[in-house]
Amino acid sequence: MAYNLLKGKKGIIFGALNEMSIAWKTAERAYEEGAEFVLTNTPMALRMGDTHILAEKCNSLVVPADATSIPDLENLFTKTLEHFGGKIDFILHSIGMSPNVRKKIPYDGINYEYYLKTMDISALSFHKVIQTASKFDALNEWGSIVALSYIAAQRTLFEYNDMADAKAALESIARSFGYIYGRRSHIRINTISQSPTMTTAGSGVKGISGLMDFTERMAPLGNATAEECADYCITLFSDLTKKVTMQNLYNDGGFSSMGMSYRAMQMYNRSLDCKECNGKQMDEEEENNL
Amino acid sequence: MAYNLLKGKKGIIFGALNEMSIAWKTAERAYEEGAEFVLTNTPMALRMGDTHILAEKCNSLVVPADATSIPDLENLFTKTLEHFGGKIDFILHSIGMSPNVRKKIPYDGINYEYYLKTMDISALSFHKVIQTASKFDALNEWGSIVALSYIAAQRTLFEYNDMADAKAALESIARSFGYIYGRRSHIRINTISQSPTMTTAGSGVKGISGLMDFTERMAPLGNATAEECADYCITLFSDLTKKVTMQNLYNDGGFSSMGMSYRAMQMYNRSLDCKECNGKQMDEEEENNL
Amino acid sequence: MAYNLLKGKKGIIFGALNEMSIAWKTAERAYEEGAEFVLTNTPMALRMGDTHILAEKCNSLVVPADATSIPDLENLFTKTLEHFGGKIDFILHSIGMSPNVRKKIPYDGINYEYYLKTMDISALSFHKVIQTASKFDALNEWGSIVALSYIAAQRTLFEYNDMADAKAALESIARSFGYIYGRRSHIRINTISQSPTMTTAGSGVKGISGLMDFTERMAPLGNATAEECADYCITLFSDLTKKVTMQNLYNDGGFSSMGMSYRAMQMYNRSLDCKECNGKQMDEEEENNL
Amino acid sequence: MAYNLLKGKKGIIFGALNEMSIAWKTAERAYEEGAEFVLTNTPMALRMGDTHILAEKCNSLVVPADATSIPDLENLFTKTLEHFGGKIDFILHSIGMSPNVRKKIPYDGINYEYYLKTMDISALSFHKVIQTASKFDALNEWGSIVALSYIAAQRTLFEYNDMADAKAALESIARSFGYIYGRRSHIRINTISQSPTMTTAGSGVKGISGLMDFTERMAPLGNATAEECADYCITLFSDLTKKVTMQNLYNDGGFSSMGMSYRAMQMYNRSLDCKECNGKQMDEEEENNL
Repeated sequence: MAYNLLKGKKGIIFGALNEMSIAWKTAERAYEEGAEFVLTNTPMALRMGDTHILAEKCNSLVVPADATSIPDLENLFTKTLEHFGGKIDFILHSIGMSPNVRKKIPYDGINYEYYLKTMDISALSFHKVIQTASKFDALNEWGSIVALSYIAAQRTLFEYNDMADAKAALESIARSFGYIYGRRSHIRINTISQSPTMTTAGSGVKGISGLMDFTERMAPLGNATAEECADYCITLFSDLTKKVTMQNLYNDGGFSSMGMSYRAMQMYNRSLDCKECNGKQMDEEEENNL
Repeated sequence: MAYNLLKGKKGIIFGALNEMSIAWKTAERAYEEGAEFVLTNTPMALRMGDTHILAEKCNSLVVPADATSIPDLENLFTKTLEHFGGKIDFILHSIGMSPNVRKKIPYDGINYEYYLKTMDISALSFHKVIQTASKFDALNEWGSIVALSYIAAQRTLFEYNDMADAKAALESIARSFGYIYGRRSHIRINTISQSPTMTTAGSGVKGISGLMDFTERMAPLGNATAEECADYCITLFSDLTKKVTMQNLYNDGGFSSMGMSYRAMQMYNRSLDCKECNGKQMDEEEENNL
Repeated sequence: MAYNLLKGKKGIIFGALNEMSIAWKTAERAYEEGAEFVLTNTPMALRMGDTHILAEKCNSLVVPADATSIPDLENLFTKTLEHFGGKIDFILHSIGMSPNVRKKIPYDGINYEYYLKTMDISALSFHKVIQTASKFDALNEWGSIVALSYIAAQRTLFEYNDMADAKAALESIARSFGYIYGRRSHIRINTISQSPTMTTAGSGVKGISGLMDFTERMAPLGNATAEECADYCITLFSDLTKKVTMQNLYNDGGFSSMGMSYRAMQMYNRSLDCKECNGKQMDEEEENNL
Repeated sequence: MAYNLLKGKKGIIFGALNEMSIAWKTAERAYEEGAEFVLTNTPMALRMGDTHILAEKCNSLVVPADATSIPDLENLFTKTLEHFGGKIDFILHSIGMSPNVRKKIPYDGINYEYYLKTMDISALSFHKVIQTASKFDALNEWGSIVALSYIAAQRTLFEYNDMADAKAALESIARSFGYIYGRRSHIRINTISQSPTMTTAGSGVKGISGLMDFTERMAPLGNATAEECADYCITLFSDLTKKVTMQNLYNDGGFSSMGMSYRAMQMYNRSLDCKECNGKQMDEEEENNL
């Protein structure tokens, strides 16, 4: 169902790789709500992914841009402002990648060149996008900027690795720039901390299916889907949340406020009580330090 | 501007005293968005306030109820379910009062009977409303319950007194019941932590104008108004925030994420630097222990 | 090992029931560190428990007091100040009880008389202790007050019931009174949020052994024991933490900052993967709404 | 007063530049408490500062090391382990610097090369120190690692610039590595979030004196001094806090839990009420966007 919540609004959406992507779902919903937007991604992601299909469907311009490259971002904003013949109203940042995670380099033997790359791609790119927007004075007053984050910024998850530190920095950038840009131009900047989601990026995280079963049983409303995250983004881009800024907002069915649910405990206890399970050697555990 | 975000939705709104009330503004906005609702308040508040004017405007039934009284709440839900011929979708709880604050009893000489009354009116009433709703199975699946809170639940403000503890309990109730009701019926429960607002209740807080000047200069977007709070409530009652639950959500122009703004610091420093100001005796300060 | 950290310091310790109690361990450690203290508990707990054994060991006066009774607290402080011939330096509050939990009344069918009793015993008693101390001017400058809390104040645990709301209020009282008493007399007030602990009180919580297995595997350092909590209390009573106040301090082996550990996930996954376990009917789960 | 709290313990202390430094005070207190330690700083800081005076006083080895350089850190740990003929027990990380702040480059026109340098010096150096310690297996079981942080990690302060993001990353590193190192070797890792302090580093922050006046009046116990921070560090290095890990611990007189104090409000209101002050033009404010 659509409400015309974004009627007349224009924006830029980063990171819509394929139809599993949260950015993809957000683009679809934004389109339904009356928004126009430019889609962007790295040249490589544009080749590998299906962004052009989405672009056709939503009647969108696609502009390639590596969000860590200032020239690319300047080109993106130039093209976007030209395309719309004026300023924009919202930006979605859905970008994250860790070479250390990709190459299975453990956190206690990390490669620091990769670490700074993780930071650059997953956190600093957000600053670069906003600083470029600010430099081009690209946003109308009361515009809204959203980045996708994850609870790893607050609580450690095994093997999430340096992405945790990057998400912590990302959320800090939302606050730091939220103050500056809010004060000057009444732009709001928030992050959404989303449930683990079975996107292309998410499915790369080791052990995500067990984790998703756990969070599904912990959260009273279950995990939030990509579609539900898209809906939440729409409210943050709309005029109904004008004074919400510098916040990290959980869209996770209540997981972040749970200590232990009956359902998750029952599942956990089953293996405690089961002879079959408890007979298993704990070999892996002993060997693994992560 | 209206979007039909609450078309077909039904609800109950507590605490719309007069046109300054956040609950009043929320009722007006909910009406614009296509909702129907019952208005309720204590019999005394109904006599003193203007609720009937709002009821007329929004074509609403008014049912008197003291939210600390289970029989009153049972009557309210009975009447509401009859009135709509079915279940409801949202509830707004905008209720708070401290006899200790009213009677200017300081926090370190508190009256404990009054303290429990503050708790009962300002926090436990929220539990009573939800428990009664639950008992009557009054809410449709994916219904939404919101209570208004204040940052005093996290950070101490002079003379906010036992209301701080009540708000902390209120937010805890949102989590505790959010788990139970979420699991069973997919109901979500959240609190909005609103900027200090010049309502009838707010204006009773001593020194609120100085505080509001400070928060206005601290928050990059300035204080959130009652209207803006109403808008935010609408998004939480809508279908676009289905997986947001057990959260305390700041609607405060960024205040909660500020350590110190340039504007507030400049104002503060002025009195530090001003001969005129600094000449003043600090008598009051010495005498006052709050 | 002892360091004379509390040499010359005097205090009051509430809630040392038997040798499993955290308050008991804290008393033992405080004694080793050179402190003198009065032990107190309700008359009933004094009859049922072993407090007199501890008192003998630590050469302590025992004064019966129901911490919800102002006359009892006034008697306690009168006796204590007489006993020491002067002011005291620290107070430990280790008190909590919920009639709703005891009588297995679920949170969504709660008895409100009991709820207020939970609040009075588990939270308001802390205010009463501090207010009485303040009224008697019983604490030396830079004195330290500590109450024991639990992570349920921030995150919901099934069947912890109204104790969660009481712990939230308890922590708020620490902040609210920490401001007042800090400003006036440089007293600091903090709460320690302790791991689940197998005390007499803890063992009454349903399903605590499964929970403790989970938290043990989640926390990188494992659960904190009662002895380790006692050690932490000693640091907070000492002169080395003079500017730490209005804080809730986790003593939990890192649990509060964990999203998911490898060990806990592995245990959880075992039941996911085990044919034996997964064959079991989910009957209980379906029936149980907590 | 000394307690022998660190008797027999060995450690490394980073960042003791001169007698105003928190690291300097911590070294002095650690020495009093019976610890031995190696002092380290960049070669340049060793030339400019007074570290050698401290080293003489505390009978310490000085090893130059740039904490962003792995070879330097490897040399430091090699020399340290040789020097003590065995493992160490604690590490203090008191390092931070932002070229953007130094060169007064505003956050919305930031230099990204400098930004990564800020991250490397102020956050990643902490990871490098721990990873090198881990690689050398340099810490005894139940060892303790502490880094100094600031509330800017949670709340934005004007002109604190990219240091805020670095502190957020620093605290995340404490959690991420606290999990790994805790699980494997029972090492605990925490950060202390200290009051603004008039050190050489602190005095470089623009407007720090006004800020310190504000925080002094907000915090019921006033700002924590460098000496008080040193005392707090001692408790975290001692055996009394073995299960405290992955935490950010405020040592700030209560500031972090304050919304508004009477004293700060009175000071603020003075300039609101003062004719003299209010007559002043707001020119600067209008011009300044930070």
